[in-house]
Amino acid sequence: MTDTKTVDASTASSSNVHEDGSPERLAIDTIRTLSMDAVQKANSGHPGTPMALAPIGYTLWAKYLRYDPAHADWPNRDRFVLSVGHASMLLYSLIHLAGIEEIDAEGNKTGKPAVSIEDIEQFRQLSSKTPGHPEYRHTTGVETTTGPLGAGCGNSVGMAIAERWLAARYNKPGFPIFDHDVYTLCGDGDMMEGVASEAASVAGHLKLSNLCWIYDSNHISIEGGTDLAFDEDVGKRFQAYGWNVIHVDDANDTAAFSKAIDTFKATDDRPTFIVVHSVIGWGSPKAGSEKAHGEPLGADNVAATKRAYGWPEDKSFYVPEGVAEHFKGAIADRGHTLRDEWVAMVDRYRGEHADLAAELDLMLKDTLPEGWDADIPEFPADAKGLASRDSGGKVLNAIVGRVPWLIGGSADLAPSTKTDIKGADSFEASNYAGRNFHFGVREHAMGAIVNGMALSHLKSYGSTFLVFLDYMRPAVRLSAIMELGDVWVYTHDSIGVGEDGPTHQPIEQLAMLRATPGLDTIRPGDANEVAWAWRAAMDNSGRPTTLVFSRQALPTLDRTKYASAEGVMKGGYILADSENPQVILIATGSELSLAVEAHEKLVAEGIASRVVSLPSWYRFEAQDQAYRDQVLPPSVRARVAIEMAGEFGWERFTGFDGRTITMSTYGASAPIAKLQDKYGFTVDNVVKVAKEAMGS
Amino acid sequence: MTDTKTVDASTASSSNVHEDGSPERLAIDTIRTLSMDAVQKANSGHPGTPMALAPIGYTLWAKYLRYDPAHADWPNRDRFVLSVGHASMLLYSLIHLAGIEEIDAEGNKTGKPAVSIEDIEQFRQLSSKTPGHPEYRHTTGVETTTGPLGAGCGNSVGMAIAERWLAARYNKPGFPIFDHDVYTLCGDGDMMEGVASEAASVAGHLKLSNLCWIYDSNHISIEGGTDLAFDEDVGKRFQAYGWNVIHVDDANDTAAFSKAIDTFKATDDRPTFIVVHSVIGWGSPKAGSEKAHGEPLGADNVAATKRAYGWPEDKSFYVPEGVAEHFKGAIADRGHTLRDEWVAMVDRYRGEHADLAAELDLMLKDTLPEGWDADIPEFPADAKGLASRDSGGKVLNAIVGRVPWLIGGSADLAPSTKTDIKGADSFEASNYAGRNFHFGVREHAMGAIVNGMALSHLKSYGSTFLVFLDYMRPAVRLSAIMELGDVWVYTHDSIGVGEDGPTHQPIEQLAMLRATPGLDTIRPGDANEVAWAWRAAMDNSGRPTTLVFSRQALPTLDRTKYASAEGVMKGGYILADSENPQVILIATGSELSLAVEAHEKLVAEGIASRVVSLPSWYRFEAQDQAYRDQVLPPSVRARVAIEMAGEFGWERFTGFDGRTITMSTYGASAPIAKLQDKYGFTVDNVVKVAKEAMGS
Repeated sequence: MTDTKTVDASTASSSNVHEDGSPERLAIDTIRTLSMDAVQKANSGHPGTPMALAPIGYTLWAKYLRYDPAHADWPNRDRFVLSVGHASMLLYSLIHLAGIEEIDAEGNKTGKPAVSIEDIEQFRQLSSKTPGHPEYRHTTGVETTTGPLGAGCGNSVGMAIAERWLAARYNKPGFPIFDHDVYTLCGDGDMMEGVASEAASVAGHLKLSNLCWIYDSNHISIEGGTDLAFDEDVGKRFQAYGWNVIHVDDANDTAAFSKAIDTFKATDDRPTFIVVHSVIGWGSPKAGSEKAHGEPLGADNVAATKRAYGWPEDKSFYVPEGVAEHFKGAIADRGHTLRDEWVAMVDRYRGEHADLAAELDLMLKDTLPEGWDADIPEFPADAKGLASRDSGGKVLNAIVGRVPWLIGGSADLAPSTKTDIKGADSFEASNYAGRNFHFGVREHAMGAIVNGMALSHLKSYGSTFLVFLDYMRPAVRLSAIMELGDVWVYTHDSIGVGEDGPTHQPIEQLAMLRATPGLDTIRPGDANEVAWAWRAAMDNSGRPTTLVFSRQALPTLDRTKYASAEGVMKGGYILADSENPQVILIATGSELSLAVEAHEKLVAEGIASRVVSLPSWYRFEAQDQAYRDQVLPPSVRARVAIEMAGEFGWERFTGFDGRTITMSTYGASAPIAKLQDKYGFTVDNVVKVAKEAMGS
Repeated sequence: MTDTKTVDASTASSSNVHEDGSPERLAIDTIRTLSMDAVQKANSGHPGTPMALAPIGYTLWAKYLRYDPAHADWPNRDRFVLSVGHASMLLYSLIHLAGIEEIDAEGNKTGKPAVSIEDIEQFRQLSSKTPGHPEYRHTTGVETTTGPLGAGCGNSVGMAIAERWLAARYNKPGFPIFDHDVYTLCGDGDMMEGVASEAASVAGHLKLSNLCWIYDSNHISIEGGTDLAFDEDVGKRFQAYGWNVIHVDDANDTAAFSKAIDTFKATDDRPTFIVVHSVIGWGSPKAGSEKAHGEPLGADNVAATKRAYGWPEDKSFYVPEGVAEHFKGAIADRGHTLRDEWVAMVDRYRGEHADLAAELDLMLKDTLPEGWDADIPEFPADAKGLASRDSGGKVLNAIVGRVPWLIGGSADLAPSTKTDIKGADSFEASNYAGRNFHFGVREHAMGAIVNGMALSHLKSYGSTFLVFLDYMRPAVRLSAIMELGDVWVYTHDSIGVGEDGPTHQPIEQLAMLRATPGLDTIRPGDANEVAWAWRAAMDNSGRPTTLVFSRQALPTLDRTKYASAEGVMKGGYILADSENPQVILIATGSELSLAVEAHEKLVAEGIASRVVSLPSWYRFEAQDQAYRDQVLPPSVRARVAIEMAGEFGWERFTGFDGRTITMSTYGASAPIAKLQDKYGFTVDNVVKVAKEAMGS
């Protein structure tokens, strides 16, 4: 206690330190001590924020959250997002005390608690229910995977949007099927991250009055006081975004916090931002210091803190009698009743609005309607063809009529990415039923928001140029980690971008996508491959899909002459062939027709050539070895991979003996034909390289 | 003119449309018509913003910019950053009219104009000086490569920081060696991007009074009016960041704009944000519409616009007599004088402050001082060893004493990334001489800022955890495109992160880095490889370097027994060998010692094994074929690559016949040893897989 800052911080709240024995205070201190103990035992983790925010977590969950612990999958539950994912012990403590019951991957109850005391004792251990950061699908009650800062903030905007959209579509007079709120706990780190700024701007613009961010302002960052790097007026900034801003001067003042939540619930024209001033590691000798953030307090400090709380020093993972009952009772009584009423209401709804109810059932099960793909066109052979962004737009528009919850938009590039739903309204503050989303030039927020929408069962998509994947990488990664069904539409997918030049020509982005575990990246080669690519993307088997489309026109191949585009579903297939091929041309996307032309020329010269279309490496690798060997026989090592992007990764298919016609630079600003000449994407060059490969 | 919005927009300024024949107005309309004509001829590009902002560009350059067109590399020049890179024709027009003289890559004058009228006629054509977006190094007068929105904003904060730091270090009483300003032209897209928000927060925090952002508020985005997605109060937001905010109601009101710039120049305690209200495509039939943004106006509209301007309709690329002279005279008279005085001052400075002057000369030539690496330690063999983040910190601290302009910091993770310069101050508003930078939890802004610092010859670095590379990818890409000497330090580089789990365990990030053209990524395997990796990173030959370090301790290998770590400079080398090796173990970073242990075991079993350390694929591929074949003989195809990250890309070295011990998932939250067991990063498994590889 020699540090002035530490003394000040503790003193500020010292009158409150000792337990008053109230059920509320007991519950709050249980959260605190569970968090301390778990981090101490794991010898790893973040104790300070759970200790500071326990009163907030308690008050929100016990007094406000509309949540049935027995049915964590109730669609109209309030959402609680822990954007400060490192404070995972706060969430695990809340899940434990609320008595949330576990639901497995198939949606069935296991009869176990979502998080038991034993699970908390296994904090951060292999295969435990309590990993270092909260993981969606892994622990019941975790609404989204957080840890990378700002992500949860963005997700929560998507969840709030989803609620507004669902309410606009499904609510009918007397049937408020959707009317839940979304609460997000965020910290200084979130507030510094650009993605949260972008998402806050979107939320303010859309007047999402069902959204409440609770900002833990503790003036501490990892490097020290936030005055080192962060002294802006965050509240004023949120006012500029159009939010209602409320200050709570002390995180321990649960009455003031309750009043703030009451104000949120009474506000119907904009989102609410509650600035809560807290002391990190509250009550401990490290209180108010960055040393309370990301490491165990140490056994002595844990003991000292328990003394300060008036807590039994010798007990670890201690939940005083009655605390769990009190906490669970508070949330479950309210939640059970609300859910029971809701279930009864939905039963009545089935009678009065059978079609909508049936639709809702499908959607909530992530299932597609019968015949959902019946309107997808087959594109006739056409030498001129059309850009895959254009055919992509046509196919999307052939699906949206039958899948009403397929919604999305673009980061201010819809006229170029062609992802607008024709005839549909824009999603706006004045029209939450709209299906076209305008995310603005905010790629990262778009990613996080689309993830949040997907977490509410909407089949949602976001689009931009492929090169701007870079701006939203963290969100794409999280979509794959969470196994969401998002569709990411990336157009302008190669140096085919042309005149916009190197800053706009994706080179390494395809490799980035393909290197991402659990992400299906499909780069279709003509309009019919596009149709199959969208079919693949609509399949909701727990992975996001990236659709990679061209800016420039691509010939529509004659499928009476070449193999069916259905091969896309296997990731790779033999498009054109010769008996006993001597050389294999492997291509994706816009280079597919180039490969076909070169193939025809090789064949005309008497060379046995094969063209393999390889739009999805992910899918191809999921095929059995026999199929893969049939498409790419191990004995044929004269292979040429053709792609107007970087070479990286292609060696998987070309090996030591093959060739690649790919990019090793960032391209140049020029009309596409000039670039194709310059970089060797011509029939003559492909033929030449194929012969070289055969000769080696 | 049937669109109401269009009529309104034109009307608003109609009294100003027709030329008044003043030199000022002639110059402004020359910029406008050159931009229209270039886009029209290229049949591609963005005419609207140059037309709207021509008065701003003219006023700033002709009346304020301290810039000598004959010496575009004058270190104390004011910087002009076109963050709205798509408005490149505005910049090219300004460079042309200002008569900037071309300087080649070696810093010599070529005797040519940086941008001639012929160059403008070649807008967006292959190899022209006028690519679609401005490219640093490609066109003299372009201060940074822009196009990806928000990037230029971030760069400009770095440039302003650089000026403050240079001034703090080199200015002496009577010697204001550095006192330049940084102007940035940004648009709605920039304002929506999170990176610009982050950078603005940093600039406000640091009270960068030498920084002026001019925000073109035209209420138009690609999808339509900004009211679709962006209606926040941007000015208020910047006030919250601590900026001085000024409004200019009409971009054509050059007097009001001049007054705003005067206010900026008189403000010494914070950065300035000027909101300029403009009409996109001003004076054209498409004025005020998104249709004026990203496509040619069309020949008829070009003609109509020229008529509206009172411009000769039949002339293209027309510069009226006297306009260039007027414009060039305005900027050059001021610039020549200022630079001449500066050169004379620096000559006197050489006399009075010889050491600093010598240091400055080296820095401005991107040259390192003699003996700069003399303090780099050699680490003794040590089985316990130390984390490469720790040895990285030691090596950095062994260099900083001899390279004063080696400065940088972290995105709030310095205690973990170990990149603090010991004994140095923090760079703060109260101390611009500090060398430790606190970027806050703003990875993307850190990237853009470090790029901006590098553009002013500072050898600058930024650090965070490897997984958070994702947050700053666009900046890393631009550092490679611009061939800057940045050093990116990424620690916590594998599943070795342990308990923090999947969100914090980088898997695909190494592939992302290695797939990026022009970026040297080095993942050293022990402390001595770290020393060489830092040496490689200090070499300023026009590419950024990524240093990838471990969280966990790595044994320091016995270099009397194994090959010297100097092999890092070649990217890959034989670390341990046997005669006629039957199997090659290839490893990087933390897996190097594992490979060595497995090798020893194989050798003990009589198997001729080799260990290749491959810390930098970039450097290895730059070696000649003979060296590469010596290290990895084509005949030895039993190869095992070992890396605690994704497999993607390793096939380049393992081919069809090799094996990889790598990751195919996102890992898990657990202590590192448990993860190593679970995923096969054990000596026994490496030995087993090596034998399998030999058997296949």
